[in-house]
Amino acid sequence: MKKIAVLTSGGDAPGMNAVIRAVVRKARFHNVDVVGVYHGYEGLYNGNFELLDIGSVGDIIQRGGTKLYSARFPEFKQDNIQYRAIERMKEEGIEGLVVIGGDGTYRGAMQLTDKGFPCVGIPGTIDNDVPGTEYTIGFDTALNTVVESIDKIRDTATSHENTFVIEVMGRDAGDIALWAGLAAGAESILIPEEAYDLDDIVTRLERGVARGKRHSIIIVAEGVMNGHKLANLLEERTGIKIRTSVLGHIQRGGSPSARDRVLAGRFGARAVELLLENKGGRAVGVKNHAIIDYDLRKAFETKHQADLSLYTLSKELSI
Amino acid sequence: MKKIAVLTSGGDAPGMNAVIRAVVRKARFHNVDVVGVYHGYEGLYNGNFELLDIGSVGDIIQRGGTKLYSARFPEFKQDNIQYRAIERMKEEGIEGLVVIGGDGTYRGAMQLTDKGFPCVGIPGTIDNDVPGTEYTIGFDTALNTVVESIDKIRDTATSHENTFVIEVMGRDAGDIALWAGLAAGAESILIPEEAYDLDDIVTRLERGVARGKRHSIIIVAEGVMNGHKLANLLEERTGIKIRTSVLGHIQRGGSPSARDRVLAGRFGARAVELLLENKGGRAVGVKNHAIIDYDLRKAFETKHQADLSLYTLSKELSI
Amino acid sequence: MKKIAVLTSGGDAPGMNAVIRAVVRKARFHNVDVVGVYHGYEGLYNGNFELLDIGSVGDIIQRGGTKLYSARFPEFKQDNIQYRAIERMKEEGIEGLVVIGGDGTYRGAMQLTDKGFPCVGIPGTIDNDVPGTEYTIGFDTALNTVVESIDKIRDTATSHENTFVIEVMGRDAGDIALWAGLAAGAESILIPEEAYDLDDIVTRLERGVARGKRHSIIIVAEGVMNGHKLANLLEERTGIKIRTSVLGHIQRGGSPSARDRVLAGRFGARAVELLLENKGGRAVGVKNHAIIDYDLRKAFETKHQADLSLYTLSKELSI
Amino acid sequence: MKKIAVLTSGGDAPGMNAVIRAVVRKARFHNVDVVGVYHGYEGLYNGNFELLDIGSVGDIIQRGGTKLYSARFPEFKQDNIQYRAIERMKEEGIEGLVVIGGDGTYRGAMQLTDKGFPCVGIPGTIDNDVPGTEYTIGFDTALNTVVESIDKIRDTATSHENTFVIEVMGRDAGDIALWAGLAAGAESILIPEEAYDLDDIVTRLERGVARGKRHSIIIVAEGVMNGHKLANLLEERTGIKIRTSVLGHIQRGGSPSARDRVLAGRFGARAVELLLENKGGRAVGVKNHAIIDYDLRKAFETKHQADLSLYTLSKELSI
Repeated sequence: MKKIAVLTSGGDAPGMNAVIRAVVRKARFHNVDVVGVYHGYEGLYNGNFELLDIGSVGDIIQRGGTKLYSARFPEFKQDNIQYRAIERMKEEGIEGLVVIGGDGTYRGAMQLTDKGFPCVGIPGTIDNDVPGTEYTIGFDTALNTVVESIDKIRDTATSHENTFVIEVMGRDAGDIALWAGLAAGAESILIPEEAYDLDDIVTRLERGVARGKRHSIIIVAEGVMNGHKLANLLEERTGIKIRTSVLGHIQRGGSPSARDRVLAGRFGARAVELLLENKGGRAVGVKNHAIIDYDLRKAFETKHQADLSLYTLSKELSI
Repeated sequence: MKKIAVLTSGGDAPGMNAVIRAVVRKARFHNVDVVGVYHGYEGLYNGNFELLDIGSVGDIIQRGGTKLYSARFPEFKQDNIQYRAIERMKEEGIEGLVVIGGDGTYRGAMQLTDKGFPCVGIPGTIDNDVPGTEYTIGFDTALNTVVESIDKIRDTATSHENTFVIEVMGRDAGDIALWAGLAAGAESILIPEEAYDLDDIVTRLERGVARGKRHSIIIVAEGVMNGHKLANLLEERTGIKIRTSVLGHIQRGGSPSARDRVLAGRFGARAVELLLENKGGRAVGVKNHAIIDYDLRKAFETKHQADLSLYTLSKELSI
Repeated sequence: MKKIAVLTSGGDAPGMNAVIRAVVRKARFHNVDVVGVYHGYEGLYNGNFELLDIGSVGDIIQRGGTKLYSARFPEFKQDNIQYRAIERMKEEGIEGLVVIGGDGTYRGAMQLTDKGFPCVGIPGTIDNDVPGTEYTIGFDTALNTVVESIDKIRDTATSHENTFVIEVMGRDAGDIALWAGLAAGAESILIPEEAYDLDDIVTRLERGVARGKRHSIIIVAEGVMNGHKLANLLEERTGIKIRTSVLGHIQRGGSPSARDRVLAGRFGARAVELLLENKGGRAVGVKNHAIIDYDLRKAFETKHQADLSLYTLSKELSI
Repeated sequence: MKKIAVLTSGGDAPGMNAVIRAVVRKARFHNVDVVGVYHGYEGLYNGNFELLDIGSVGDIIQRGGTKLYSARFPEFKQDNIQYRAIERMKEEGIEGLVVIGGDGTYRGAMQLTDKGFPCVGIPGTIDNDVPGTEYTIGFDTALNTVVESIDKIRDTATSHENTFVIEVMGRDAGDIALWAGLAAGAESILIPEEAYDLDDIVTRLERGVARGKRHSIIIVAEGVMNGHKLANLLEERTGIKIRTSVLGHIQRGGSPSARDRVLAGRFGARAVELLLENKGGRAVGVKNHAIIDYDLRKAFETKHQADLSLYTLSKELSI
């Protein structure tokens, strides 16, 4: 291959720019040209292309968001739209495509590959919910943002001896809630993967009070329920005034952490290698600290598993 | 005076610990003892006291929240409760009291002073809404937290070309919204001090779009309206999908900024001096970079004025 | 005026980009064009110009450094070089110039004004050493960076019960050392404005040890002496092992603080107003919270005064 | 076992407090008492003990440093000192000991175990240089501190078009340099594990200049050489002015990252389990995302290996 393209799609995640940079630099290392596609699959369809040289990815490794923009484009499911996109790329001499995003993004990449155009997927989402990889780009950064936010809220919770419910992102996955809850020393953590037990939460609240501890932090993943709703349930049960904080979109932004940047470099480089080896239809991932690749289908045909040993641990440490 | 007391009351603010430290150290510099009162006025009534030596305020200058805790205690309005609190202090040999908080906190301090027990007030609240001082302890830190949060949200707003409404704290004051909006380059800022003009906001949104800019940040102070409500109003008017983020309690916590810590040192030292000069019933403040003191009544009998020249400036810069 | 130019010169400071943005936006508000000059006075001489529209200053308010670059260009002292620069600007239809930098930067601006080309100066330097203004752009950010760094070092100092000498920037001014030392609760602060007293520092160290405190932080401004040298002097006197940290260039970078960004907006806007009023040869500044302007000469013919009341305060609080 | 002890030793690392908290909470979960030993092995010898209940480890999960303090105590090599320490512990009813530190710390723990007192080691050092575990507590935090510092320096490097040599910690290990250099997009990285090639560094510098890039970041691990020395060598070879920044002790402090806190929880819990299973002489570690344990001797009889695939990657990405 002499020319490949790269796009970002789905929810943005810190580290996507670091991936773009790695793709461009690794490709240039092999004298391959890289075309940036703006606005995800919509831009692919519209031919919203720009040649990315080394200079164009300067000073972006540390930036949140994605310089290629992201967009929703449900129309990309249609075969004719996909054929048009392939045509666009071929007109430009593009021979392979790297997509950065979540499982929705991978679906389009698989379909293009099935139509004869080799694509490789890189997992980029803060939710850490892409099957087949232990970590996704953006998860570590979001985790640190959440933990820093909880630290701030705990200053207030401690000073006022209040109980807080904090709602965090993660879609259907509990990874952010689980890791952040453990890292922030939360008293209770609710994740979609485990049925919650209001009695247990109430017991923990009351046990803390009995021990003289009059503040408490409860983390709830958005996939379980709305933070305000949980606070209401707990108020009814305990008679304690509960405050709620929905962390919201601050979780998606910010400069990527060191880990996310290193992973971005490794993922980006491997994705280029796969294309150069003509291995389309693959996703890259990390497993046991090694960079792996696997069938793109696995990412949307299987289900991500959170590390539930952390859940057990959190129960033991939050006595 | 040979012994004074210090308490924190009302909403906690970053820098309160730095004030406590300064009060203790300045008093010890003059060989005066300092008693810490836990849980605000409630602790004053209950005699929840502890002698604070230099070591007890070590390693707290950088901590958010307040090591003396804060609490609401509406009963403190009652004369008999106040007399009991004075009695408690006299039993311990305490001759003066420093209170750290907002205008509600000052009211109690004024009443104690009127009953013959000299009190001095230090403005500690993120809202910057204490009349008679240009800045309160905690405002600068909260401002930086808000601006960093908006920076993160802008990463996402830019990448997805979305418009965000961001609701910030401030009670009835627009200071946080105004300063943060200006510092973060928001397109529109809504504050309680100025009537908002939906037409103008809509025009700015549409002008941005016409110029090719497809993301936008609108800051609304909680004193104007709920962020979700504003987003709904704007969606109805523009047909554009608007996202909302309510920053919430992260705004009250965190390690105090350099400014807040320096101001804390200056306020704490002056408050002690006032007590040693037997000047009860005074509040400390900063005006034109100088530390001033004024009648505590001014703080709850007049109204805080935000610097509205910043509002005009924000309009000109967000064309 | 229909077209003005803007450049940054001297050491870079966080917030310079926010100033550039404000200059462009305020000028555009008045339908005035703005030309960015790259590489400071060298670029002015070489005609390294680019028209800056609103879009070109998007997404820079939060960035450290300066998108216009900075450079040393001692040759700019020469009259013929200055005449050539003026010629270059006139060829482009430029009628006024905003320079952002320190007193060295102002000198060139004054000379251009004297030669008939109106210039206005904006104080941009972390050192806070520009006479005539209470604050310069970048000082507040650098201060926070320094305080956060000292907080980190104190974690280690406390854990290991070590004494640290920390050298901070500031050229001939003690502002960074003074404010940061006060904000971080340093035991001793050495600034160029006050003769240091090794005996006093030693006494403080020993008093701390006697009180059971076995760690200590000493801040030294680079204008006093090298941190390693001070550590050696103290080791000789006390026999205590002293560690040294030279904070170095991290102090100049980073995303600007909220204060620096607000001040950047106010300075930039006023500078444009002055040019539009044909008031060349002026510097903008802040005094008693108001934006002022004054003769550029004042900035290099008088001397900056640090607020030495903070020095006295630091002595009292670090007993 | 009914009572165990815990101490920190060697250089402090962010996350040590989170480990202490986990040890106490996990032990309390099993109704085991925990004694905190102050000042490392010196405190063990002197019987500097305190019973740690749940409340005593409240609000420390987020703090840098170690609340148990650390100290050097070379005398602990002596057998009689070790026997005295064991006696001290037995007098208090202590039956097992958790030590947190690096390989030096482990040596003492092994010798106590050999003398019949079961000890377990937890790797706590920013250097990531403990053999047998992929990560140590503190590494991830230090890495992020270094990367944020390089980001700040790059603001200046870019604005002034300067080249910087940045010296980072790591003792004889290149992990911090390697990961941080990759994460920050450094042009060259020098680590003790690989012979450096001045010619290659010079070539990269010159290639950058030829491409129009006039700033450059070179990371050197302290185990290779002093940063100032490298800068001098490069100045001699290139004639380019090179600036140097020695990051120093800021790398050891700060609030632990989310990863370090989660790892701290996992390590602490496992260490307690090992003691309860009477498995002394073991170290805990992480391998392939699982918590493992292995013979303490391995930690000081084998040598840590950095992940050199990152070195190769950094070469390819920094073309």
